[in-house]
Amino acid sequence: MNEITRPAGNEMWGGRFAAKPAAIMQEINASIDFDKRLYAEDIAGSKAHAAMLAATGIISPSDEAEIQRGLDLVLGEIEAGTFAFSREREDIHMNVEARLAELIGPAAGRLHTARSRNDQVALDFRLHVKRAFVETEAALGRLILAFLDRAEEHADTVMPGFTHLQVAQPVTFGHHCLAYVEMFARDRSRCRDAIARLDESPLGAAALAGTPFPIDRHRTAAALGFAGPTRNSIDSVSDRDFALEFLSTAAIAATHLSRLAEEIVIWSTPQFGFVRLSDAFSTGSSIMPQKKNPDAAELVRAKAGRITGALVALLTVMKGLPLAYSKDMQEDKEQVFDAIDSIGLSLSAATGMVRDLGVDVAAMRRAAGHGYSTATDLADWLVREIGLPFREAHHVTGRAVALAESTDARLEDLPLDVLRSLHPRIHAGVYEVLSVDASVRSRRSFGGTAPENVRREIAEWRARLG
Amino acid sequence: MNEITRPAGNEMWGGRFAAKPAAIMQEINASIDFDKRLYAEDIAGSKAHAAMLAATGIISPSDEAEIQRGLDLVLGEIEAGTFAFSREREDIHMNVEARLAELIGPAAGRLHTARSRNDQVALDFRLHVKRAFVETEAALGRLILAFLDRAEEHADTVMPGFTHLQVAQPVTFGHHCLAYVEMFARDRSRCRDAIARLDESPLGAAALAGTPFPIDRHRTAAALGFAGPTRNSIDSVSDRDFALEFLSTAAIAATHLSRLAEEIVIWSTPQFGFVRLSDAFSTGSSIMPQKKNPDAAELVRAKAGRITGALVALLTVMKGLPLAYSKDMQEDKEQVFDAIDSIGLSLSAATGMVRDLGVDVAAMRRAAGHGYSTATDLADWLVREIGLPFREAHHVTGRAVALAESTDARLEDLPLDVLRSLHPRIHAGVYEVLSVDASVRSRRSFGGTAPENVRREIAEWRARLG
Amino acid sequence: MNEITRPAGNEMWGGRFAAKPAAIMQEINASIDFDKRLYAEDIAGSKAHAAMLAATGIISPSDEAEIQRGLDLVLGEIEAGTFAFSREREDIHMNVEARLAELIGPAAGRLHTARSRNDQVALDFRLHVKRAFVETEAALGRLILAFLDRAEEHADTVMPGFTHLQVAQPVTFGHHCLAYVEMFARDRSRCRDAIARLDESPLGAAALAGTPFPIDRHRTAAALGFAGPTRNSIDSVSDRDFALEFLSTAAIAATHLSRLAEEIVIWSTPQFGFVRLSDAFSTGSSIMPQKKNPDAAELVRAKAGRITGALVALLTVMKGLPLAYSKDMQEDKEQVFDAIDSIGLSLSAATGMVRDLGVDVAAMRRAAGHGYSTATDLADWLVREIGLPFREAHHVTGRAVALAESTDARLEDLPLDVLRSLHPRIHAGVYEVLSVDASVRSRRSFGGTAPENVRREIAEWRARLG
Amino acid sequence: MNEITRPAGNEMWGGRFAAKPAAIMQEINASIDFDKRLYAEDIAGSKAHAAMLAATGIISPSDEAEIQRGLDLVLGEIEAGTFAFSREREDIHMNVEARLAELIGPAAGRLHTARSRNDQVALDFRLHVKRAFVETEAALGRLILAFLDRAEEHADTVMPGFTHLQVAQPVTFGHHCLAYVEMFARDRSRCRDAIARLDESPLGAAALAGTPFPIDRHRTAAALGFAGPTRNSIDSVSDRDFALEFLSTAAIAATHLSRLAEEIVIWSTPQFGFVRLSDAFSTGSSIMPQKKNPDAAELVRAKAGRITGALVALLTVMKGLPLAYSKDMQEDKEQVFDAIDSIGLSLSAATGMVRDLGVDVAAMRRAAGHGYSTATDLADWLVREIGLPFREAHHVTGRAVALAESTDARLEDLPLDVLRSLHPRIHAGVYEVLSVDASVRSRRSFGGTAPENVRREIAEWRARLG
Repeated sequence: MNEITRPAGNEMWGGRFAAKPAAIMQEINASIDFDKRLYAEDIAGSKAHAAMLAATGIISPSDEAEIQRGLDLVLGEIEAGTFAFSREREDIHMNVEARLAELIGPAAGRLHTARSRNDQVALDFRLHVKRAFVETEAALGRLILAFLDRAEEHADTVMPGFTHLQVAQPVTFGHHCLAYVEMFARDRSRCRDAIARLDESPLGAAALAGTPFPIDRHRTAAALGFAGPTRNSIDSVSDRDFALEFLSTAAIAATHLSRLAEEIVIWSTPQFGFVRLSDAFSTGSSIMPQKKNPDAAELVRAKAGRITGALVALLTVMKGLPLAYSKDMQEDKEQVFDAIDSIGLSLSAATGMVRDLGVDVAAMRRAAGHGYSTATDLADWLVREIGLPFREAHHVTGRAVALAESTDARLEDLPLDVLRSLHPRIHAGVYEVLSVDASVRSRRSFGGTAPENVRREIAEWRARLG
Repeated sequence: MNEITRPAGNEMWGGRFAAKPAAIMQEINASIDFDKRLYAEDIAGSKAHAAMLAATGIISPSDEAEIQRGLDLVLGEIEAGTFAFSREREDIHMNVEARLAELIGPAAGRLHTARSRNDQVALDFRLHVKRAFVETEAALGRLILAFLDRAEEHADTVMPGFTHLQVAQPVTFGHHCLAYVEMFARDRSRCRDAIARLDESPLGAAALAGTPFPIDRHRTAAALGFAGPTRNSIDSVSDRDFALEFLSTAAIAATHLSRLAEEIVIWSTPQFGFVRLSDAFSTGSSIMPQKKNPDAAELVRAKAGRITGALVALLTVMKGLPLAYSKDMQEDKEQVFDAIDSIGLSLSAATGMVRDLGVDVAAMRRAAGHGYSTATDLADWLVREIGLPFREAHHVTGRAVALAESTDARLEDLPLDVLRSLHPRIHAGVYEVLSVDASVRSRRSFGGTAPENVRREIAEWRARLG
Repeated sequence: MNEITRPAGNEMWGGRFAAKPAAIMQEINASIDFDKRLYAEDIAGSKAHAAMLAATGIISPSDEAEIQRGLDLVLGEIEAGTFAFSREREDIHMNVEARLAELIGPAAGRLHTARSRNDQVALDFRLHVKRAFVETEAALGRLILAFLDRAEEHADTVMPGFTHLQVAQPVTFGHHCLAYVEMFARDRSRCRDAIARLDESPLGAAALAGTPFPIDRHRTAAALGFAGPTRNSIDSVSDRDFALEFLSTAAIAATHLSRLAEEIVIWSTPQFGFVRLSDAFSTGSSIMPQKKNPDAAELVRAKAGRITGALVALLTVMKGLPLAYSKDMQEDKEQVFDAIDSIGLSLSAATGMVRDLGVDVAAMRRAAGHGYSTATDLADWLVREIGLPFREAHHVTGRAVALAESTDARLEDLPLDVLRSLHPRIHAGVYEVLSVDASVRSRRSFGGTAPENVRREIAEWRARLG
Repeated sequence: MNEITRPAGNEMWGGRFAAKPAAIMQEINASIDFDKRLYAEDIAGSKAHAAMLAATGIISPSDEAEIQRGLDLVLGEIEAGTFAFSREREDIHMNVEARLAELIGPAAGRLHTARSRNDQVALDFRLHVKRAFVETEAALGRLILAFLDRAEEHADTVMPGFTHLQVAQPVTFGHHCLAYVEMFARDRSRCRDAIARLDESPLGAAALAGTPFPIDRHRTAAALGFAGPTRNSIDSVSDRDFALEFLSTAAIAATHLSRLAEEIVIWSTPQFGFVRLSDAFSTGSSIMPQKKNPDAAELVRAKAGRITGALVALLTVMKGLPLAYSKDMQEDKEQVFDAIDSIGLSLSAATGMVRDLGVDVAAMRRAAGHGYSTATDLADWLVREIGLPFREAHHVTGRAVALAESTDARLEDLPLDVLRSLHPRIHAGVYEVLSVDASVRSRRSFGGTAPENVRREIAEWRARLG
């Protein structure tokens, strides 16, 4: 039944091809080196399929019992490390099946009924990607929790808010942490949406057209934890959207991680000195005792490139492929497996780094006070409190900064009479906005950096995460 | 208020910089050539902001009235084509604002209160991308309808189902069309998910820290059709996920379109001859009257590369950017605008091609009958009807095909006694599965190619699409 | 000496770090799983370095002798498969060095003098990539030879020349083969240029600044087969251009291969039937005896995506890295190794396919004669022989084709009086250009498809290739 | 002659197609909006072609004279801005040709002889890309000169050499500049290699098969400044390697530029303060007078993403295209044009920034002295001068650093007796290596950072550049 493509000369499949396969063909064609990673999914799929075949009367109960027993044996061998994977048998499906035949004899042949390698690999891979989404979502959740903890600890810690990597306005480190919470929460929500979208079982689509056997695809779908079966057999074997969506979701998350990593690299220079990586996530030098290299952060930063590359690879592979299945699609798995590992490793490393990060509160505060970072607050005060038109407020502020610069003072150090020389209606209330603490406290607009906002947001996030 | 970055020497912004900006700086820095496309969003955002400023008492009702009147005038000028865009004024925000000042005088200066170009551009771009998602979803809906119509028309049309571009098993053209319905429906659902995720207004995040003014961000969010405001001001100005998600969604959809285009290109060769493009979507040659080039399909196929390139560009731009806003992010818009146009054009062209496609039913049927495409049906019958074990069924089928090949006959042309010589229990019932029509009719498993399945699916899709 | 970065707690490097490295750190940081592939280059580099250290008097002859002996032992162990690679020792450099110390004791410590892991890895990787370029160039040469052989065999074989995958004008299959010769010859020339560009030894750049030891970098460069040493120590350790250039060269070559593969896939459909893949490069189906799937061609086609992805990955990794070395650059090797294997495998498979390809000369000729493919020849004849203006020639040709179509005839089957009814000066000489053979024979312009051109080009290519 | 593809219903091309082209087809098909950029190349190609047609007797001298006159008129109109480009006429070729016909009448029709739009567009585009390579090479030369000037000025300026963005060892800023010289010199050499490779004229390949007219392709090649004609007509119209090679060359150069830009962004923070951008290449803020944003550097950094995206786009477009010409290839031009502009703009901006960069020599020196950056020098001295084994030298150095740290001193501030307590053979000579100046002076190995090396390299580069 159904199509099983094999290289010419394959032992199990007869004499049609005169010639033995070229060695090069075996090398380019065999996938067992990487698709053995799908063994658990392959066996789970076969077990569900066998149970359904028996339930619908397509195979006998005794054949099913033998198949179930045999598959359990195969699973045990693989997990015990005693299974001999064979490149001759090309892929995980043939490796499992051939071993099953050795173990239980002819009944193994019944397992093929009403399925093909085309729907089998689609099922295995989809199950694997679904689990990867679930695990990625969980890892994102752990990273979010790490950020919430640090945000809570640093709800009042003032640091410079940067634009263009230049000091712009004071913010709280807690608020900065919450920006990452937003980013990784969007990544989580993309995982959830993708899971809902891919939650259909392709098993039973067979080679590409469905099958005349009275199979029950809803049953196998349910047994394998899917919401239901796919609705079109051709699409079932030619679709790799779930893989592309994993790669694009991972690429965006990795881009977020690369931004975090960049900040860690820059902030842990002696010049910035905002943070200090724990020993666990840095490396030293055999000779330069001063060095503490942020290797983990650098590697996390680099993974964004790696995952973007995997996404490009699969998009390019899929481009222009006619339906239904083409062998090009065998190139899907290594890219996705690599991305699963890369994003998993990156999320774990990031979570560890965030948890362990030493924060130099004093250094942050010092940097926040530099460079007249509260000039905006002065201008806003002039508009808000004494009703100056915007342009005049700007003008006055510019002159105040110039005066402060000329005496190497901070804005808040300018005496009131000096400020009044700039505009007679300025009063002592202005000092309430000129310190970095006042500045961050004042930004209570929804989503603003004020400590009270930060605390409220943390509470809401904790409630949301349950 | 807030940060407004401008090149040195900018007319509106004083004497701090001694030097005039280098010409090269103006050229690399000015964005008005492309971001004028955001004029409608920019003005809508300003109108909502002004209304909120008045409602919260931050500006006076009369100032607001002037601003609203002025913004309407600016909008009118732009839509009438009489607005003089200026590269000196860099971007759409400054162009609108400066013109507003010319039209209404000092009140224009109040509009800036409690916002920055950082949240302004985030708002404009997000509104634009949201609309692009809505329009892409609608265009996908039209393409799906075109496929449903063709599927209905061809629910019984038999064609070869391909794997590896080799004839595998007969399918119906209607079923093939429904495979594309599944693909484009997933694209639609990705649009919907993305819209829900980006449906937050960044307006009021200001430069990056929020603002001390008592603004009402829920009000502006509602006025602009958002579900609510963003929750973190730093993230609000540094986030471009919505753009990345548009690009990845479009890239996957374009990859689907490229597969359709490839089939059209191959199927419209004289060698295949399955379809004939309408004149409207092909080009001829000035000298070779036989030529009818599938230009539209080729261009649609190529757009997958273009959109993938745009996705890579923005992922790479965003990689490793520290928070909050960096000027690198100005590179976001051209990539997204180009992808919006490319996917829109591709979907329209694909919809037109699908609607107009001439289908050569006879050619399809002829091709479906070639190459013993029902051999699988014979093997399945032997398993199902006379209980042969799988291996033996295969063996018998192989011999039947060899016999048919030797006499250049189709399987269904083999006389019963010949078939019986292969296995004595074969009976006349076997002929019911050997024709391509019987083959497709038999594949009634859920999602299979049988005409009755196709009709049921079409009805369900129509119901779902309302 | 110089910098050797190691994870905290590394056995060999003291007590500075209190904490043990997190398990996650070891996992993300260790590179031995992939960089052990560089063992031969690493040992060759160390041997050359030791010899130079002795020659310049930096170490003693006896120390050098011990080091050389020890390195040979290590090499022997690795090649015999008895070497125990250790993830604790992170990378190939530390694995080799630590084993050397076990084997020869303290003298091993002298080997470090005047070098660092930074220049060491740059050297190893550069040597590896240089060899990959040399091997790729050779593999391209073999593919070119395969095409030249087929071109010679088919210098007179007429087939349809396609544009837009529609029949355009007749060409010879030999000429088509030579188009690929041009493509792959450009790939070869890119390899040669890249080899000349990367042919500099970074050894001796040390950590990034050079060294105060009186080393002789020209000597080590020569010993390792380089044209000379690199000229700037910072660039030496931060440059990965050679890797990027390998990836871009391989990506372009893989794109060429993908075009060839696409043609093989399309041409081996029953609809085209131009070629038949040998059994060695196709797979069959267990049940559908008619199927012969072009798996090797499909996999070759897909590799273009894979290599493009690797290129994107490394470009993105390198984007925005400050000088000199950052750990991000550890992500360079897996991408390049994968691309080396992919392009090597693809070139071998393509060469095998081209050599073994069954060509159906009759099917090609039949297809070439379809669709008035010589209409251009008629028009050209009218311009050339009887001096018709271009527009009139076109008009006459169009009418001739219409007449032929109406009687289902070929152009060459139209009687002379019929042709004369279109233009009285047409004479019997016209038939000399209307057959496909005449058409290809006539295209003798430089680079044109005429058999005599094809033979001349083959001779020139053979001479050039020596 | 030859193939000219046009959309159905095109005015100039008769009644074959009943239907008018869909509006969407015109929109997706017309290329005039972007390929008008090729007008100069198109006209130059036509002039060379006409001259050759006359010289070989294919057209008359008087027809040629008319054509040359007419083409000069068209060129004049375009350059004067009076030419009315038409989307109805699709592309630059048809726009020029149709206008030529209006201007000179029937003789215009002779220009088509023995060529096609396929070889015409290949020629135009190749000429354009060749010029782009020449200009990019020149722009790289200017950037190199800017770096040489700064290197000369700062041959003795000490700064910290970074690895992992942590201070590693002292280097000179001049040496750092020369690292960029190496990088951009490799980019130049890639340009030169590519020019040599693409230096062949495709004109005369016609539609894809060559032509029966006795044309002289060597003549047109020479007239257009090519080394000779292409050797295979099919490859001539299907090859886009020159475009891919421009994109990959530009992508690598842009990656170099992004690294420079990253350093400028980081170095111009107040925390680093190594450099100060000139006003011409930065922007300020309307309210925060302290801000000087490195916009030009950020935009240059971002262009690496843009150009990488363009490279991916064209690689993906070309993947899997059968020979010879497919309409997909029309997507080549916008990507390349955009990359030409992006790399040109980036190189100009980078050159300007490098020339104008304010260097804070004192800040660099201060930072170089931090963190025991000369610890390596101490260890090297112990090995070199008093013959300590490597391990012991490290150990002594580690203790010296610990002692210095405990008293907050620099290494060079430790008294001799303290050093002697670590090892009795340490003598006063050690102080010669402990200062940052001594450190950089000592690194005289070939390619090392010593000022004398820097000066010698500058002289060599100047000699090489002529």
